[in-house]
Amino acid sequence: MKKIIAIQGAQGSNHHKVALDFYGDAITLKECMSFDALVDSLLDNTAHIGVMAIENTIAGSIIPNYALIDTYNLHITGEEYLNIHHHLMALEGQSIDDIKEVWSHPMALLQCKEFFKKYPKIKLVEDVDTAEVAKRIAKEQLQGIAAIAPSIAAEIFNLAILEDDIQTIKDNATRFVIVQKEAPNNGIDSINKASLKFQLNHKRGSLATILNVLSDCKMNLTKIQSLPVIETPWKYSFFVDVTFNDYQDYKKAESILEIMAEEFKILGTYKNGRG
Amino acid sequence: MKKIIAIQGAQGSNHHKVALDFYGDAITLKECMSFDALVDSLLDNTAHIGVMAIENTIAGSIIPNYALIDTYNLHITGEEYLNIHHHLMALEGQSIDDIKEVWSHPMALLQCKEFFKKYPKIKLVEDVDTAEVAKRIAKEQLQGIAAIAPSIAAEIFNLAILEDDIQTIKDNATRFVIVQKEAPNNGIDSINKASLKFQLNHKRGSLATILNVLSDCKMNLTKIQSLPVIETPWKYSFFVDVTFNDYQDYKKAESILEIMAEEFKILGTYKNGRG
Repeated sequence: MKKIIAIQGAQGSNHHKVALDFYGDAITLKECMSFDALVDSLLDNTAHIGVMAIENTIAGSIIPNYALIDTYNLHITGEEYLNIHHHLMALEGQSIDDIKEVWSHPMALLQCKEFFKKYPKIKLVEDVDTAEVAKRIAKEQLQGIAAIAPSIAAEIFNLAILEDDIQTIKDNATRFVIVQKEAPNNGIDSINKASLKFQLNHKRGSLATILNVLSDCKMNLTKIQSLPVIETPWKYSFFVDVTFNDYQDYKKAESILEIMAEEFKILGTYKNGRG
Repeated sequence: MKKIIAIQGAQGSNHHKVALDFYGDAITLKECMSFDALVDSLLDNTAHIGVMAIENTIAGSIIPNYALIDTYNLHITGEEYLNIHHHLMALEGQSIDDIKEVWSHPMALLQCKEFFKKYPKIKLVEDVDTAEVAKRIAKEQLQGIAAIAPSIAAEIFNLAILEDDIQTIKDNATRFVIVQKEAPNNGIDSINKASLKFQLNHKRGSLATILNVLSDCKMNLTKIQSLPVIETPWKYSFFVDVTFNDYQDYKKAESILEIMAEEFKILGTYKNGRG
């Protein structure tokens, strides 16, 4: 049986690209129109695996997605960092002078606003999804309409890229995580990163104490984020990512944190997507 | 001369409420349609003071606003925490059964989507700003149209609140900061909080070392957030907020951090908006 991979958005999206990078094309894709729908499909077992954007260099952490993973006790089992490129694409044979309208997600239109200042005749129209527009252009052979989507959408739907990298901010790296309802039993060989969550009271030095433990156990901190615990004044949740060389060092840190930190939780252990 | 206060959004918005809470109503309000426009008005001296949302409990830190403060070397000189309430409002004498359309900002519509499921006949129409719609309803005496806005908008524009607190998530606290181009010379009496930024190399234990210093100097950490430094692998920026009882303790911490941390920067010192 093919693995069913739930992605946010449509075929040809960046989420689809991450699914292909991880699992190749022998998969069944389940397109979800929201992150909530994606989580639902994992919980009701209509998908085996989910691909979820979790942070990017423009907007920072996507806190609602952290909350989904935390609330529904999903396991992070992998990660990938992707540089987001917005390309302008249309039917083969069309040039940019033929384009009357661009249909895309409001966020993609916003990120490419500067580019379109050079083309005041092109009308920008909000649509639900970037890649889905590419599909519609191909299927209905729409002349004069362009999509803003990743290059994978041009490949899948046989569209021509009229202009590369039209986003204003050129470096928009996005981190995606692979999430599953149950932690798979993959062995520990390739595991060198962990995502942890814990709570601390607002007592002076409490975080420093925990970070000292992590440092003593040879954990390298790659991310830290505090969030106030809603309705509990002076109590904070911390989301921490660490990388390590030796899994035994990590297990030692884990054992100490279980004792020292409140509400300690392992969101996942997986292979570092960087370097 | 009245102080000119730049706010994001229009009169009657939550940003306006914060401006009133801080400076009373003897102010001239400058309505800005984006945070970039707000910063521009400080830089070109067309406004003295800016009010800017910086984080909320639903979405976390508003990283682009941190970037604006950092890039343009603005000073945080105050803060306020506000619980965001979305109220449905229309002309006096209208009841909810009279309402045919609700015009509001896409984010407000999204946050109140659940409420409108009970009223499928009401059409939701995207508009640029929440409070500006309230103003338009009052000015043009629009029958059958409702706005979603804070209660201050109902007061200012003499509208009737048809339904209180229609947002799905009831606890959406937002933190606003007061920003200025130059740090005012206000004395140190009421100052018990500081926002700091520094960089660290990805060396094991480097953050723990800094947090130990802060703890030794009796600083209480209320927020910590790491952000990768774009285009510099393994280097991280940290945004840290601390509260303290004694300003001299803070000055000591500041002196040590100046020596120990790279690119150390004080984003502002101000009075804690909580408790």
